[in-house]
Amino acid sequence: LKVFSLNSNVGLAQEIADAIGVELGKCTVTSFSDGEIQINIEESIRGCDVFVIQSTSQPVNENLMELLIMIDALKRASAKTINIVMPYYGYARQDRKARSREPITAKLVANLLETAGAHRVVTLDLHAPQIQGFFDIPIDHLVAVPLLADYFGGKELEDIVIVSPDHGGVTRARKMADRLKAPIAIIDKRRPRPNVAEVMNIIGNIEGKTAILIDDIIDTAGTITLAANALVESGAKEVYACCSHPVLSGPAIERIQNSTIKELVVTNSISLPEEKKIEKITELSVAPLIAEAI
Amino acid sequence: LKVFSLNSNVGLAQEIADAIGVELGKCTVTSFSDGEIQINIEESIRGCDVFVIQSTSQPVNENLMELLIMIDALKRASAKTINIVMPYYGYARQDRKARSREPITAKLVANLLETAGAHRVVTLDLHAPQIQGFFDIPIDHLVAVPLLADYFGGKELEDIVIVSPDHGGVTRARKMADRLKAPIAIIDKRRPRPNVAEVMNIIGNIEGKTAILIDDIIDTAGTITLAANALVESGAKEVYACCSHPVLSGPAIERIQNSTIKELVVTNSISLPEEKKIEKITELSVAPLIAEAI
Ligand SMILES: Nc1ncnc2c1ncn2[C@@H]1O[C@H](COP(=O)(O)O)[C@@H](O)[C@H]1O
Ligand SMILES: Nc1ncnc2c1ncn2[C@@H]1O[C@H](COP(=O)(O)O)[C@@H](O)[C@H]1O
Repeated sequence: LKVFSLNSNVGLAQEIADAIGVELGKCTVTSFSDGEIQINIEESIRGCDVFVIQSTSQPVNENLMELLIMIDALKRASAKTINIVMPYYGYARQDRKARSREPITAKLVANLLETAGAHRVVTLDLHAPQIQGFFDIPIDHLVAVPLLADYFGGKELEDIVIVSPDHGGVTRARKMADRLKAPIAIIDKRRPRPNVAEVMNIIGNIEGKTAILIDDIIDTAGTITLAANALVESGAKEVYACCSHPVLSGPAIERIQNSTIKELVVTNSISLPEEKKIEKITELSVAPLIAEAI
Repeated sequence: LKVFSLNSNVGLAQEIADAIGVELGKCTVTSFSDGEIQINIEESIRGCDVFVIQSTSQPVNENLMELLIMIDALKRASAKTINIVMPYYGYARQDRKARSREPITAKLVANLLETAGAHRVVTLDLHAPQIQGFFDIPIDHLVAVPLLADYFGGKELEDIVIVSPDHGGVTRARKMADRLKAPIAIIDKRRPRPNVAEVMNIIGNIEGKTAILIDDIIDTAGTITLAANALVESGAKEVYACCSHPVLSGPAIERIQNSTIKELVVTNSISLPEEKKIEKITELSVAPLIAEAI
C-alpha cells in the first residue's frame, strides 16, 4: 500500500499517511515553462495498491489534470490498483441538464477518471448522491455529518435547532438533528416576481433558540449568510453554520466576516489558504474518516 | 455545418468561419466564481456537423477542459458529428516514456477527447507524427511547411540554406529545402561531459549564406537562439527562423529580441497575446489551410 499526494491537499495527505502509519510516496508534481504538468514518480510502485489524495478544488482544472496524468503514470508503471481519494469532487454541481444544451460535467469527470485508469474512488459528501451512479467502478461515499455533529455536541449548546438553508438540504439537516436530538427548521426562499428580491420565510420554530445551519458546499456564501441574517431577524438567539466543503470563492470570506454567523465549522476536504483562515472558521479533519475507509 | 470557437483562438476561428462562409456559432464559455467552467450553447445544433476550434495552448489545462466540456455538451445536444480543430496539440512532447514511471500525456489527451465524444480531429504539425496512432478516430494532420516556404520564397532571398536546429527536425528541414530548392545543414549539439556546456557543431556549408532555421515548436527559445548565434559565429550572412507553433513561454521573447535572428516567422496555431507581438515576429495564418480541410 502506497499513499501519494498531489498538490491540492498536502496537509490532509500527510495526516492520512500518519494515521495509517506509512510514509507519503515520493513524487514531484511541477510545471514546465509553458504550464504543462510534469509528474515524476520517484519510487517503484509495481504491483502496489496505490492511493492518490487529491481534491479537485480551485484551481479545479489544474488539479483535475494533475490527477488524470498521475493516474496515467501509475497505470504505465504497473500499479496493481489505483485508488483515488477525492475528498472534494469538483464540478459536482453540474450533475444534470438544468437547461437545454448544458454539459453534465460531473459525469464527464467520472468518465475521464475511469478512462485514465482509476479502479476505485473514495469521496465525501457528493453534492448529489446520484453521482455515485456516474461511475462503473466502486465508489466509497463518506459523510461528514457525524464529525460535524460531534463537534457541536461537544460544545454543549442549549436549546438548539438544526436549519437547512434550502429545500435540497433537508435530509442532511434531519441526519444532523437526529444525532443531536434536536428539531429542524427550513429556510423557504421564494421570489415573488422576477427581478424582485427573494423573501426568506422560515418553516419551523427558531425563536430564542441556538440555530445551526448546515450545507454541503459553501461557495460565495450568499445563501448561508442571508439565511443567518434571516434567522437572527426572526428571533434566533445565535447562529452557527457548518458545511463539508469550504469552497469560499469570491466575496465569501468578507460576507462571513460581516454576517451574524458566530462560528463556521468546516472540514479540510478543501485546504484553506492562509488568507481564508479567519478566526470565525473552525476546521475539522477528515483524515481519520478517510484513513479508516482506506 | 456549424463552427464554434472556444477561448484559445477566437481570431483564427473567425477567419476560418469567414473562409467557409458561415457565422460562428453562438455560445458563451465563462467561469463560475470558483473557477469551474460554464458553457452555454445558445443555438440548436441537433443533427449538425459541428466543428470546434480550440488549441490546447497556454493555459493548457483550462483550454483542454473547455474543449472536453464543450464536446460533452455537444454530444448531449445531439450533434451529428463532433469535429475538433486543434491547431496546436498541447502535451504533444510527452509522447513516450523517456524515463521510468513517466506518464504519456499525449496519449491520455487522445483518450480523453475520444471519451468525451469527439468523432474526428484536425491538427497541425504534431510534435511526433506517431501521435496520430494514439487515436482510434480519424485524424487529419496538416503541415505548415508549404505556407512557411512560400513566405520565404516570396522574399527572394539569395543563396539560402535551410537549417535544422537538431537531429529530430531534419525531415522537416529537408521538405522545406525541397520547396525552396536549397541545401540543408544541421546543428549537431553535443555535451562533451555532464554539466559542461553543449558544443554547437554545424554539419553542412553555411558560410556566407542566408540561413533559415526551422522547428516545429519554439517554447523557451533556448535552442533556436543558440543555434542562430552559432550560425552567425560560423560565418552565416544572416539568420531567419520559422516554426509552426509559437509557444514562446518564459524568457522566449527576450531571447529572440536579443538574438541574431533577423525575423521569426510563425503561424497563428497559437494566438499571440499583444505583449508577444514584437516587430521581429511575423504571423502567417493557417485559416485557409484549415478551412480547406473542413
Ligand atoms: N461551480 C458552480 N458555481 C455555481 N453554480 C454552479 C456551479 N456549477 C454548476 N452550477 C449551477 O448550479 C446548479 C446546481 O445547483 P443545485 O440546484 O444546488 O444542485 C446548476 O443549475 C448549475 O448550472
Ligand atoms: N511542456 C514541456 N516543456 C518542456 N519539455 C517537455 C514538455 N513536455 C515534455 N517535455 C520533455 O521533452 C522531451 C520530449 O522532447 P523531444 O525530445 O524534443 O521529443 C520529453 O523527454 C519530455 O519529458
